[in-house]
Amino acid sequence: MEAILATAQPRDSGIDAIASATRRLVDAITRAGDAIDVDADRILADLDALTGRIDARAPDLSERIATMWRQPGPGRFDPAGGTENPLSPPVSLWVEPDGSLRGEVTLRLAFQGPPRHVHGGTSAMLMDHALGIANARAGYAAVTVGLNVSFHAAIPIGTPITILARHDGRDGRKVRSSGELRVGDLTCVTATGTFVLIDDPSARKFRRPSSEQA
Amino acid sequence: MEAILATAQPRDSGIDAIASATRRLVDAITRAGDAIDVDADRILADLDALTGRIDARAPDLSERIATMWRQPGPGRFDPAGGTENPLSPPVSLWVEPDGSLRGEVTLRLAFQGPPRHVHGGTSAMLMDHALGIANARAGYAAVTVGLNVSFHAAIPIGTPITILARHDGRDGRKVRSSGELRVGDLTCVTATGTFVLIDDPSARKFRRPSSEQA
Repeated sequence: MEAILATAQPRDSGIDAIASATRRLVDAITRAGDAIDVDADRILADLDALTGRIDARAPDLSERIATMWRQPGPGRFDPAGGTENPLSPPVSLWVEPDGSLRGEVTLRLAFQGPPRHVHGGTSAMLMDHALGIANARAGYAAVTVGLNVSFHAAIPIGTPITILARHDGRDGRKVRSSGELRVGDLTCVTATGTFVLIDDPSARKFRRPSSEQA
Repeated sequence: MEAILATAQPRDSGIDAIASATRRLVDAITRAGDAIDVDADRILADLDALTGRIDARAPDLSERIATMWRQPGPGRFDPAGGTENPLSPPVSLWVEPDGSLRGEVTLRLAFQGPPRHVHGGTSAMLMDHALGIANARAGYAAVTVGLNVSFHAAIPIGTPITILARHDGRDGRKVRSSGELRVGDLTCVTATGTFVLIDDPSARKFRRPSSEQA
């Protein structure tokens, strides 16, 4: 049985490759810190030149937003799990035989909160994201109304984190899901979420991949 | 009376300027989307060359972490509010006369969740960050153990968001704080957090600015 990807399939070319390269740039910048100050003016000039070239190709913002939400399949631009978004940690979530989701991610220095450990807000973001996708997999287009995150153990940076999420049920217009972040066998973060159904299911991230709808 | 900044003072040079320039690059990339695919190979080569140059200046990771946590003043590298961190939205928080915190931030396309609106996980991250700083201002070095976020209204991207946070009290080793995100007079997100005191107060983000300790 082939594994089913609940999130966007990363590409190794075009905008996805540029997003990956930008993540490597961010990684280098955060590791360098003020050690790059001596070369800062030249790096700045090169960065600004690159931004200018990309800007020149960018459509109008409203056109871009309209286009991005017409794309088939799961969202590619989320700040959590977006293959096209350089801010997003590269999170892929797979559908387990029981319908729940599982994924893995390793967070670098840029996601540090306390020394050598992942920022609590980053964990909360990963949970919000995974819980929303779990609802989408269950067929519900919904947005978060309540998110409850408990932190049981600190998560080291540079260590594979397992993300688990499941849809727990529906009451009227509200749907519930829950999830956790694990390092090995240790449950570090647990979360429950309440979501409310939305009337506009055109939001791409809330739909199943078009390959499965066919 | 001069306003007191509870977060790091952004610099307009060196690593802070490079982080800002990288935020502009991310902004251009997310606005361009696959419109940059035609020029992707050259952009990739330029990005990788830049990363290589910065990498060559970066110290060993453990040396970098040791150095960054010896810096005086509020943390400069957080994924929320870190002036040196390109992933971080540029959030500054100021101390109000009653000791609570207030700041303003505008989030760009890269922080979009639902169409034209801020990702719930980003709001959760901003709240976790602000609640932690509110505790630090009250003199408590603490890490998040519980975060409860309620979403009352969607926050548009490209709109100034007011961040409010306050320390609410201490019970033994636990401290509590709360906060909200507003757009104009509309309260869009509210949050409460429970934090536990840590024994190692060397974590810089948990201390008051050294200028105030003198």
